[in-house]
Amino acid sequence: MQVWRADAKDQTLMKETTPSSWIRLGGRGLIAQILVDEVPPTCDPMGRHNKLILAPGLLVGHMLSSCDRISFGAKSPLTGGIKESNAGGSTGLQLTHLGIKALIIENAPQTSELFVLRLNADGGSFEPASDLIGQGAYHSAEKLRSRYGPKVAIALIGPGGEMRMLSAGIQNLDKDGVPSRIAARGGLGAVMAAKGLKAIVIDSLDGKKPEIKDEKAFKDAQKKLNKAIQDHPQTEVYADFGTAAMVAMCNGFGALPTRNFSDGYFEGAESVSGEAMRPIILAREGEGDTTHACMAGCTIQCSNVYAGNDGKTIVSPIEYETIGLMGSNLSIADLDTIARFNWQLNDLGIDSIEVGAALGVAADAGVWEFGDHEAIMKLLDEIRTGSPLGRVLGNGAVVTGRTFGVRRVPAVKGQAMSAYDPRAIKGTGVTYATSPQGADHTCGLTIRAKIDHLGVEGQVDTSLAGQIKTAGYDTLGVCAMATFGFSLTQESIGELLRARYGWDVSEDILTELGRKTIDLELAFNRSAGFSSNDDRIPEWMREEPLPPHNAVFDVPDTDLDSIFQT
Amino acid sequence: MQVWRADAKDQTLMKETTPSSWIRLGGRGLIAQILVDEVPPTCDPMGRHNKLILAPGLLVGHMLSSCDRISFGAKSPLTGGIKESNAGGSTGLQLTHLGIKALIIENAPQTSELFVLRLNADGGSFEPASDLIGQGAYHSAEKLRSRYGPKVAIALIGPGGEMRMLSAGIQNLDKDGVPSRIAARGGLGAVMAAKGLKAIVIDSLDGKKPEIKDEKAFKDAQKKLNKAIQDHPQTEVYADFGTAAMVAMCNGFGALPTRNFSDGYFEGAESVSGEAMRPIILAREGEGDTTHACMAGCTIQCSNVYAGNDGKTIVSPIEYETIGLMGSNLSIADLDTIARFNWQLNDLGIDSIEVGAALGVAADAGVWEFGDHEAIMKLLDEIRTGSPLGRVLGNGAVVTGRTFGVRRVPAVKGQAMSAYDPRAIKGTGVTYATSPQGADHTCGLTIRAKIDHLGVEGQVDTSLAGQIKTAGYDTLGVCAMATFGFSLTQESIGELLRARYGWDVSEDILTELGRKTIDLELAFNRSAGFSSNDDRIPEWMREEPLPPHNAVFDVPDTDLDSIFQT
Repeated sequence: MQVWRADAKDQTLMKETTPSSWIRLGGRGLIAQILVDEVPPTCDPMGRHNKLILAPGLLVGHMLSSCDRISFGAKSPLTGGIKESNAGGSTGLQLTHLGIKALIIENAPQTSELFVLRLNADGGSFEPASDLIGQGAYHSAEKLRSRYGPKVAIALIGPGGEMRMLSAGIQNLDKDGVPSRIAARGGLGAVMAAKGLKAIVIDSLDGKKPEIKDEKAFKDAQKKLNKAIQDHPQTEVYADFGTAAMVAMCNGFGALPTRNFSDGYFEGAESVSGEAMRPIILAREGEGDTTHACMAGCTIQCSNVYAGNDGKTIVSPIEYETIGLMGSNLSIADLDTIARFNWQLNDLGIDSIEVGAALGVAADAGVWEFGDHEAIMKLLDEIRTGSPLGRVLGNGAVVTGRTFGVRRVPAVKGQAMSAYDPRAIKGTGVTYATSPQGADHTCGLTIRAKIDHLGVEGQVDTSLAGQIKTAGYDTLGVCAMATFGFSLTQESIGELLRARYGWDVSEDILTELGRKTIDLELAFNRSAGFSSNDDRIPEWMREEPLPPHNAVFDVPDTDLDSIFQT
Repeated sequence: MQVWRADAKDQTLMKETTPSSWIRLGGRGLIAQILVDEVPPTCDPMGRHNKLILAPGLLVGHMLSSCDRISFGAKSPLTGGIKESNAGGSTGLQLTHLGIKALIIENAPQTSELFVLRLNADGGSFEPASDLIGQGAYHSAEKLRSRYGPKVAIALIGPGGEMRMLSAGIQNLDKDGVPSRIAARGGLGAVMAAKGLKAIVIDSLDGKKPEIKDEKAFKDAQKKLNKAIQDHPQTEVYADFGTAAMVAMCNGFGALPTRNFSDGYFEGAESVSGEAMRPIILAREGEGDTTHACMAGCTIQCSNVYAGNDGKTIVSPIEYETIGLMGSNLSIADLDTIARFNWQLNDLGIDSIEVGAALGVAADAGVWEFGDHEAIMKLLDEIRTGSPLGRVLGNGAVVTGRTFGVRRVPAVKGQAMSAYDPRAIKGTGVTYATSPQGADHTCGLTIRAKIDHLGVEGQVDTSLAGQIKTAGYDTLGVCAMATFGFSLTQESIGELLRARYGWDVSEDILTELGRKTIDLELAFNRSAGFSSNDDRIPEWMREEPLPPHNAVFDVPDTDLDSIFQT
């Protein structure tokens, strides 16, 4: 596997031998290593010194169930720190079929034009994208697929990225060619625009699967993993209800963000729960589907296709975080409405968490009224047209709070919190506070831990274990949904790596990869100017009690500061 | 002199003995000491733990020429660091006549209502301000003067502060009762709103001048100082042309901010220079005046009254920074127009530097076109009505840049640069980069130093000397215009302090006070999370050459980091 390096200024592409210190890393870990090695931590994230990196995880390439995720990374213009954001879909798989260990896009373009970076077995070229400017992700993807063929993988930005909004992510096609798998967090879509790219098209038709050192051992390990995934009871829950299964659970814990994080219990939760969604999808028949795979070979299929009364798809998929941030957080208790928001957000190529949080802050400021779904749809239109208000919202919760003078902003390191209020799930609060990535549930969600989530005891240890594991899985390219399966067969990780690469890896390789990744990320952030003061839940959440438990975030600062000291 | 402490929650006022470690400080130095002693550096600037402090300088109280300035301070919501911003007018003088060493406003109000804090010899009371809500500074001041008498001093906020804009300052009446002396920088007007105050009214009618230990020695020192001020050639320049004398000089150095800091030479500079302003004012007669004192007893009278063709006042005064940021920086070459902008900004109670920089960034983003004065007037109206665009601009250059995805933002530590491009006056660039206050010429302007301003040599030493001196003068309450006089009679500082307080002070008291002040400020910022990474001129100014000299900011980071190490 090689490193492909694209220069946005000269519009050239070079293939390089992978440096030895990068070989045993992939995904999030490799991104951290490349950023530490090559990007000045104090650079302007939108300037020529920053680099946009695409790195498939170590297990990506063979359609192992839920193990083909692609990681994007750069210095984040949202947090000012290190950023990795990963997604499903076909981008990771096809990159590996071209033999790409990492694609590094560097330098700054000489004009403000946007281009398509086309990659195939011959190399790469920069091609015009002028017909796509201002176009949404869905239409752009369609056009690109008709130009480059229906089987290409595509990573692209929507109007949000083009406007360099800090909520802009990078959309990826799912296995059916729909741009719905967004690497959402940290404004990486804005970085892609700053590199002069509207889309990266990956055509691996003349490529091939990465080499496997020991085919038999690999097949055996794969079988074992598949069985474990099938055996885990959580797999069925996800297949039936998708991530929306979390609505009832989180509401039960009093941690479901409601009306800009002013309540942890949403009176309308039942009607937007996974348990409500499934019968709706089933009853409507048509294009709707309760289970759907975003990556080829996935046996969990947590995704879904949500159709309207007429049986036509509104959006695919609806995920829990969108229900939390664009639903309960905005006092919206209707799935059809949330589905319509979701399509807009996907098409704009922006993060539903960041924008949902921004809308909550804006409602607190009196810009619109909680529950008014027409107002939200108009505000999403304003984001699309790039009106001043739209640009404020599209730049996320912190910019919205600053603009309207609102203190109640749910964010850490500049990034909005996911759909778990840290006052009621305190371990996840510890993750929000201390993760080098900023507030993000995917960096170490603790809601399933057997622990008193309202207490202070044990939260730091629980968060630390979760943070290390997820950093490990993000380095492997493993989806969070598959980690349940891996938990039943931890040895599979070593078996798969040994079989594929012929490496001598320890039983504890997941922890080793995770710890190494986080240490690199912490080092980058320290050099970028972060200190323990940045590892804090906002003051108002430490003072304003959250109903129904009237909890505040009270994990002591000294506990937070101890988390990575071991 | 006592410390008066107002509680915004309970609406009470307590008088306290001044702690011994505060006695030998005033103004900026005292604010630094109080913030270090009492405010957690990591607190939310808009929350209950922050404190708004008013502290007259050590020499304030006896109408010494240009030595009655008032310092305001708090943790800044704009920079996130320590903030002191000072102003002329009558606020400082009257506070000392009530025996107030420092007024500390703390805690957070229980409602969103705004009040008047009224201070007189009996103490303080919180009184309704509901009739002033949304009113500009001019109208509000008039109403307050008719309610509380024409001789009161007033510190108040305009609509900008009420909307908690980060460009909002605190307006103070000049000696004629006009609210034009703004403590502009760092968003202290927003902090005042967060403490529930529209205005602080100071009625010292039953007060008295602070005690003088040795009247004769004081009189002698005062005479000596007055003579020195009169003798210095710069005094006449300021009397004739005001601070606008700087236009020609700065343009000559190729450092006059032009069209969002894209040029250092403004082709229209001549028509907005001090040399142009004087004959206009003289020719129009009427209310116009080329010299005007903002503080009683000032012998320099650098201020002016600018009247229109009809002889009626448009605004008083027009200052250089406003000409630079709202004139050349926006490609406006007409003084009448700038005067009208200036009135609006004064009335809104916002910082012309921060808003001028924000407008420049917005023009770069295509929001309006450079040179279109009608567009600017409409945008100032939008700030007044609090439209989304108005709020973005009112929150300053960084928020504007983030909102519109513009990298070319002239700011350090979140605060916009004054009207000296750091690429052509590099010592002032060092001040912008390293001052604990953020980018601010008043923290150490180097343009008069005998040095090659385009070179790297000596810039750090020149900035350091300037920073220490100005921190000293800001602690004494001395106006920058009077420092020319003091430079001819440095011993006067010690003589005045000895005569007034009976203290044993060294000849080097100015340096001692300045150094102590800066060390306290650095300590606060370090605890707030600042590091050397925050002491940097933006990347684009280190890479984009500034015409006409095609200079970049190239003082090495190691030089910047060495500045306070001695």
